[in-house]
Amino acid sequence: MLNTQHIQSLSHTVVTPSPLSLCYQLTNHPNVPFPFSPPYTHTLKALESVTGKTSSANKEAFRTAMLNVMERRLFFIPSFKIYGGVAGFYDYGPPGCSIKQNLTQTWRNHFILEESMLEVECPAVTPEIVLKASGHVDRFVDYMVTDIKNGDCHRADHLVEGHLETVIDDPKTSSADLSEARDLLARVGEMGAKELEEMITKYGIKAPETGHDLSPPFPFNLMFKTSIGPRGDLTGYLRPETAQGIFVNFRDLLFYNGSRLPFAAAQIGNSYRNEIAPRAGLLRVREFTQAEIEHFCNPNDKSHPKFSTIADVAPLLYSQELQMSEEKKAQRMAVGEAVGKGIIANETLAYFIGRTYLFCLKIGLNPDRVRFRQHLKHEMAHYAEDCWDCEVECSYGWVECAGLADRSAYDLTAHTNMSKVPLLAFDAYPEPRMEEVLTIVPNKRELGKEFKREANTVACALENMEEDAAMAMKAKLEANEAVEVTVEGNVYTIAPGMVEVKKEMKKVSGKNIVPAVIEPSFGIGRLLYCVFEHSYYVRDGDDNRVCFSFSPVIAPIKATIFPLMSKPELNRPAADIAAALTAAGLSNQIDTTSASIGKRYARTDEIGVPFAVTIDYGTVEAGTATVRERDSMAQVRVPMSEIPEVLKELTAMKIEWKDVQARYPAQAGQVE
Amino acid sequence: MLNTQHIQSLSHTVVTPSPLSLCYQLTNHPNVPFPFSPPYTHTLKALESVTGKTSSANKEAFRTAMLNVMERRLFFIPSFKIYGGVAGFYDYGPPGCSIKQNLTQTWRNHFILEESMLEVECPAVTPEIVLKASGHVDRFVDYMVTDIKNGDCHRADHLVEGHLETVIDDPKTSSADLSEARDLLARVGEMGAKELEEMITKYGIKAPETGHDLSPPFPFNLMFKTSIGPRGDLTGYLRPETAQGIFVNFRDLLFYNGSRLPFAAAQIGNSYRNEIAPRAGLLRVREFTQAEIEHFCNPNDKSHPKFSTIADVAPLLYSQELQMSEEKKAQRMAVGEAVGKGIIANETLAYFIGRTYLFCLKIGLNPDRVRFRQHLKHEMAHYAEDCWDCEVECSYGWVECAGLADRSAYDLTAHTNMSKVPLLAFDAYPEPRMEEVLTIVPNKRELGKEFKREANTVACALENMEEDAAMAMKAKLEANEAVEVTVEGNVYTIAPGMVEVKKEMKKVSGKNIVPAVIEPSFGIGRLLYCVFEHSYYVRDGDDNRVCFSFSPVIAPIKATIFPLMSKPELNRPAADIAAALTAAGLSNQIDTTSASIGKRYARTDEIGVPFAVTIDYGTVEAGTATVRERDSMAQVRVPMSEIPEVLKELTAMKIEWKDVQARYPAQAGQVE
Repeated sequence: MLNTQHIQSLSHTVVTPSPLSLCYQLTNHPNVPFPFSPPYTHTLKALESVTGKTSSANKEAFRTAMLNVMERRLFFIPSFKIYGGVAGFYDYGPPGCSIKQNLTQTWRNHFILEESMLEVECPAVTPEIVLKASGHVDRFVDYMVTDIKNGDCHRADHLVEGHLETVIDDPKTSSADLSEARDLLARVGEMGAKELEEMITKYGIKAPETGHDLSPPFPFNLMFKTSIGPRGDLTGYLRPETAQGIFVNFRDLLFYNGSRLPFAAAQIGNSYRNEIAPRAGLLRVREFTQAEIEHFCNPNDKSHPKFSTIADVAPLLYSQELQMSEEKKAQRMAVGEAVGKGIIANETLAYFIGRTYLFCLKIGLNPDRVRFRQHLKHEMAHYAEDCWDCEVECSYGWVECAGLADRSAYDLTAHTNMSKVPLLAFDAYPEPRMEEVLTIVPNKRELGKEFKREANTVACALENMEEDAAMAMKAKLEANEAVEVTVEGNVYTIAPGMVEVKKEMKKVSGKNIVPAVIEPSFGIGRLLYCVFEHSYYVRDGDDNRVCFSFSPVIAPIKATIFPLMSKPELNRPAADIAAALTAAGLSNQIDTTSASIGKRYARTDEIGVPFAVTIDYGTVEAGTATVRERDSMAQVRVPMSEIPEVLKELTAMKIEWKDVQARYPAQAGQVE
Repeated sequence: MLNTQHIQSLSHTVVTPSPLSLCYQLTNHPNVPFPFSPPYTHTLKALESVTGKTSSANKEAFRTAMLNVMERRLFFIPSFKIYGGVAGFYDYGPPGCSIKQNLTQTWRNHFILEESMLEVECPAVTPEIVLKASGHVDRFVDYMVTDIKNGDCHRADHLVEGHLETVIDDPKTSSADLSEARDLLARVGEMGAKELEEMITKYGIKAPETGHDLSPPFPFNLMFKTSIGPRGDLTGYLRPETAQGIFVNFRDLLFYNGSRLPFAAAQIGNSYRNEIAPRAGLLRVREFTQAEIEHFCNPNDKSHPKFSTIADVAPLLYSQELQMSEEKKAQRMAVGEAVGKGIIANETLAYFIGRTYLFCLKIGLNPDRVRFRQHLKHEMAHYAEDCWDCEVECSYGWVECAGLADRSAYDLTAHTNMSKVPLLAFDAYPEPRMEEVLTIVPNKRELGKEFKREANTVACALENMEEDAAMAMKAKLEANEAVEVTVEGNVYTIAPGMVEVKKEMKKVSGKNIVPAVIEPSFGIGRLLYCVFEHSYYVRDGDDNRVCFSFSPVIAPIKATIFPLMSKPELNRPAADIAAALTAAGLSNQIDTTSASIGKRYARTDEIGVPFAVTIDYGTVEAGTATVRERDSMAQVRVPMSEIPEVLKELTAMKIEWKDVQARYPAQAGQVE
């Protein structure tokens, strides 16, 4: 539905159709909805029932109905639509762009501002060496198979998954085969080329649609490749994640933080993955916004200074143990308790799980449809200490929207190895103490005589020798033998006198450590998509009355202003209140169309505007206007001069609607 | 300075240097400034004298001093620094990131919110056809020459410019040669390959540094190229500007706006240009943030409904006439007067010039160093009606920070031609009128019989025929002759009866038009860089007292909180006020280091924090604290409970410092 072509004319010259043909085009406009009618009968109740017990057909119908509204109201637009679109790319239209901005700003306030994180912004274009160090050049792949006749590309794991699901759904499958298929399905994500090929052979899997044979699976790197500069010899990639920009800046950020641990840095920006065959619509796109945090701390002390503020927060936790249990169901547990019981590895990881949960509530996700799932042992990278995904339930199932991982010293070590710049922090002892210390003092004069311009290179290499190697060198030099040292492939002969190696007792105030990294990483677009699903409902089973129950803080437009009729004496105060709201930083729009007030309310509900201000003759006479709340449709009568402040407090979630109802007299509702 | 390598160790294994070598590394840290000493003697006065009368050496010294502070305080970081950096890429560090966010948000409020623009967000990865339509694939080039011996790449125009400048500066140059060189220098930017080659031959220009011969100039496309999807057959580019994303969405945006003109759409996002040899530091980068507006209006009515609100705004205008005059100096003129005199082509363009000027003032640019320069006739594209650059003066000279162009119907026409989707608006007449109308009615049954699956293609082509061709076809068909119609290279024979062409009088309510586009386009990074230059000063000639006079609305941190001494009874109220400021959405930091209050003020001045709150024993006793304003260094005594609101109003620029001084008692300043 999202990538169909909308080519309506084939002439190569500029065409100016007659009004008639324009009418034709407008009624065939892709954004004009097909009539609302069954099967789009989704009430709030139906929405709730999507939580697992309804069939996948129902879920798809729900999703289609919602996407239909979203595309018609321009929350999103398939990118490059007039050229037929390109799979995996979507634009945000005006309300989508606004709500995404608000969600991102809420994230920035909730994490960066409240936690005093160091925010950075790095380019998306990244030279190969950075992504070689991080492992993406070698290992950021999906396995691809091609249709051997027409060359179509498919993701091998998707085909195997699809086939296994068919086997499982088939009532004729024997119980032994069923059990095997279930076990295999759970592991498809981790299969390599060889195992995927075995699956394709075993089940005789063919290319979808054509039924042709498939090539053996081969790895396809998901990064978009490009070339930097005019010579064409510097390969670059579009970053597949924003995290590396933080790691390569670790030294400067540590310095900025007064050389103290712990501290957290964050980056919000776009990342790119050249998916083989994007499906799942807005959930799997090729260009997407990430918000990533890297919290650097002492590997021996992962306590968090603000942990007590979050210890009682109790999200649904789906631990390894619960996943292996018979019931396979997440349970609510305070993160403090989870740390105490050793379920979550440490305070800092648990702190971010709690904060992430609070963020989910702030943006309006349903708390019963948000869970934190611990990675199973075999899912985790070898270096990871512990890892939890924030999963949100939507019509596609439980979707990973954030990942929270204790990645130990992996990333900083990888960049230290590749760049030769030590990414270390100094861990001060509580009191200085006496320690036996290895000291390597190059004799720069002697080195200079021997190695000329390379002397400094050699000196650096000597200074940074591992202890064992240095002691072996010391022994040889003391025996008056020369030692060969290899630096960057060049061999240098070190003679006695060129370097002094000693071990001596010294007062030492601390030692260098590679900090551990705890990484909460968010997919902004996925969170936003889930907010849409959790917010969408229709009133009282009436499919013409669609509504998004967006939290006021992220709603794209905070208030719509309706003159009851389009008359100058009503339009004037409407324009005044609009200007006052704009001055207060509240996005708003005036609807002066001649539709009935009920129809106009319905229109504003459809883009989830939380508040409506209706200007009537009472406004002219008494200087008051009606303020309506979207979900309850309740109305109060508020003096015009007080409306901006009331709406500002509501939008900042400093007061609730019931506070407003207590403060102002109720107004009987209009016919909607 | 910005791209040097900082490799400090050459071992390939993880190294854990001894504390001694860590000390060595920290004191050699690239962010530790080299000692402040002459020639960095730049007072505020010196800054002002940069406006044209100082030598380029002075300007460079000023810039070096400022960049030194900016790099040390992590406003920016050369990207991928631990790998030696890549020319043309910079990261924003914490204060840089924050000020950029604030500037962008100010832009969004000033333009999008206040003008109710439709904001969109489109991908940077763009399929080739979109940029083929826009002309970028064929024409977005710079001319490159290579060193014929070592292959180094250079921009031909830069080499020619550099050489001409040397000729001009040489006292031995004859007055005839001087005059010729000046004329040529003014035109280098417009020279093609042939003329650049003539210059290189005429002046015997060689490769810089090596002195080798140069290849003939050849075009180099500045777009980063990549490939979309796994097949490798869909070429994509990183967008060189954000505007195209708006143009391709024109139909949907018009529909969203109720099919009415005028309306404006906007996009803020990153664009990419693979510069041949980036120089001018932060001003010419390969990845940068743009904020672009496309205002669509009736080509016959470029009035602006809010023009009267801006008519008296009087920026420096540097019209074509003034540029051709003897004095060559911009003059202040109200934009209303400029439209009246025909200097600015229309109200809408002038409206955006006025609004852009107000934006420049809001972010703290010096009004005397902002001018609007009209493009000369030969600079303008053939389709442009009028074009003005917003230029800001800095140490590099007058730098283009925004461009405001009336691009007529060019862009929409180009995409209509390429996509075959008519990008039109309906221009309603004030009253319906009778008009002779061409109507082409394909006989779908007959076409279906003859052309089967292609019938619809043929019908569309017939419906959209130009009037002349349709009338010629009509004549032939009426003479019972068949007509050949070519659609997408295929020839179809149309027989009589397959289509009816008629001209009849009809009541017509309007006609389709291609809207005109007025495009204000901003370079966020360039504006930000100029803000830095206009804000940087040192106090009273003391080079140790560097300050950025950022406007409170864009300052990266709004307030620093200083406990006079680090004692629990002072640290506690400091933490309380910090929490209160955070809750009010004001970014802040606490400085509890043991440095003197004067040193701590100096540190906060260096990153341009506009306000400081000092907690002393008066806070404990009387519940008041000192609030200090950065530039005047004046202090007042404010009750703790009132500080968040006071700072919030100051930061939102609702009140000024003098209002605060009037409200609260002055406090004698600390020794700084």
